[in-house]
Amino acid sequence: MSLVIVGSVAFDSIETPWGRRDRIVGGSGTYCSLAASFFTRPKIVAVVGEDFPPEMIAFLQSRQVDTRGLEVRPGGKTFHWAGRYDYDPNVRQTIKTELNVFQDFRPKIPADYRSADILFLANIDPDLQEMILEQVNKPRLVAMDTINYWIETKPEALMRVLRKVDIFFANDQEIKMLTRDVNLIRAGKKILEAGPSLVVMKKGEHGALVLGRDFLFGVLANPCEDVVDPTGAGDSFAGGFLGYLDRCGGFSQRQIRKAAVYGSVIASFVIEDFGVDRFRSLTRRDIAGRLRRFKKLVSF
Amino acid sequence: MSLVIVGSVAFDSIETPWGRRDRIVGGSGTYCSLAASFFTRPKIVAVVGEDFPPEMIAFLQSRQVDTRGLEVRPGGKTFHWAGRYDYDPNVRQTIKTELNVFQDFRPKIPADYRSADILFLANIDPDLQEMILEQVNKPRLVAMDTINYWIETKPEALMRVLRKVDIFFANDQEIKMLTRDVNLIRAGKKILEAGPSLVVMKKGEHGALVLGRDFLFGVLANPCEDVVDPTGAGDSFAGGFLGYLDRCGGFSQRQIRKAAVYGSVIASFVIEDFGVDRFRSLTRRDIAGRLRRFKKLVSF
Repeated sequence: MSLVIVGSVAFDSIETPWGRRDRIVGGSGTYCSLAASFFTRPKIVAVVGEDFPPEMIAFLQSRQVDTRGLEVRPGGKTFHWAGRYDYDPNVRQTIKTELNVFQDFRPKIPADYRSADILFLANIDPDLQEMILEQVNKPRLVAMDTINYWIETKPEALMRVLRKVDIFFANDQEIKMLTRDVNLIRAGKKILEAGPSLVVMKKGEHGALVLGRDFLFGVLANPCEDVVDPTGAGDSFAGGFLGYLDRCGGFSQRQIRKAAVYGSVIASFVIEDFGVDRFRSLTRRDIAGRLRRFKKLVSF
Repeated sequence: MSLVIVGSVAFDSIETPWGRRDRIVGGSGTYCSLAASFFTRPKIVAVVGEDFPPEMIAFLQSRQVDTRGLEVRPGGKTFHWAGRYDYDPNVRQTIKTELNVFQDFRPKIPADYRSADILFLANIDPDLQEMILEQVNKPRLVAMDTINYWIETKPEALMRVLRKVDIFFANDQEIKMLTRDVNLIRAGKKILEAGPSLVVMKKGEHGALVLGRDFLFGVLANPCEDVVDPTGAGDSFAGGFLGYLDRCGGFSQRQIRKAAVYGSVIASFVIEDFGVDRFRSLTRRDIAGRLRRFKKLVSF
């Protein structure tokens, strides 16, 4: 199978109660493809400016991420997001968003990416997500993610994309906002009515609920004593989830449940350090160890 | 085995987005003993005024709750709490607290309650909790609950009781407040250092974490599409938890995990209607059915 991830590759400036980092590499596509790389060899589509560190592209490649779809725009400046977290890691405050090269990005999918089995439209402008959908040859599975910014500014474009995907990832507040329903389960059912056959409702430190047409699966977040930087946890969850499905080659309910557990496990690592640093030392052995711990956490 | 529950039996006036009820019967002792009654025959210790409806005492007795420890104070008025919930069932706002007969309550444990195997000090004034501890003969297990009001107004009395109990129940915000730690796991470990061998950290709609000296167990709340009244969910969780342990007659890690699942299951019923009304129609068969559903919810 093959997994194509379209998302942002960006600079993040982050403040948390445990420190701050200026212009470190982040972005939905970065987190997602690194997380997926522990299960499969994802292909990434994104754009960066010429200020983007070649070292990070080399790191992606060292993790077997196919970066031929990563356009480096000469003279351009990389997308930059600045945000702050308080003691509650579930509450994120955006300080600044500089779109830069994403302002006039027209994604172009490399020819041999077009027959992807799984296409993930990570969090970017829904108009771009739609443009990408037009370039691929019927993937077996299309998933998307979004954030409140697009729900507020481009709800119609977002709904158009939503109708064309199989899996919708978003956090609980966003799903409630999009459906105007205060109850998460009812809100999730409304998403299913709009098109997707699966909705993954991420609840940060409280885990996630996965709602299908005929089942509901609840997964806890691995409790963490030292959340250093919550950025990218949701993107890493999606990356682990889809990377696992790509490795499995199937989308049965059982595989989806396991995918959500792997998503939760991999997200529990990334928050232990700033940016994507935790992925530098992470091993498959670590993941297997935490999966065992997770089984003990929830077994009765 | 035998389970003695000391808590409040009260009138609650409740406003939720789904309706309001004036002076319906509630109280930590009421919810807890009714929840426990599906597993064992709990004995209750509390005080009410002569305005308390005999019908409710008859209901408790019909559920096999031993009410000989329920004092009816002639001329007294029953404790009255008034509160409001918004769309987030995890956020409770207290409008009014009239202690009435609880103002000068000096609990007296009936002679044949004193050899209880399990004693539960449900949420009441920590000074009263301490007074009760002095009247019992070394129960095999002592548990307590509390709320933010006592953490703010009587932290020292609370810490004195905490040192003498085996299980501490509280919600996540209260545990963070009491330990002055923003991280729930670290906060829970601080509670263990203060005396208890188990801390049950209730997270409302997000479930609960049970932290022992050598294990951590996470249990989800059963997702509910129609939360009518969240009052008493935490007390019912504790009642189901301790009622199950009392029925088991043991406190192994395995039994504790199962107890937490039963606590979560029974709490998921009580919120479906105002006050304790859901307990009127609830059956053991319903509980067994939801336990099966819960297993499906979390299995992978």
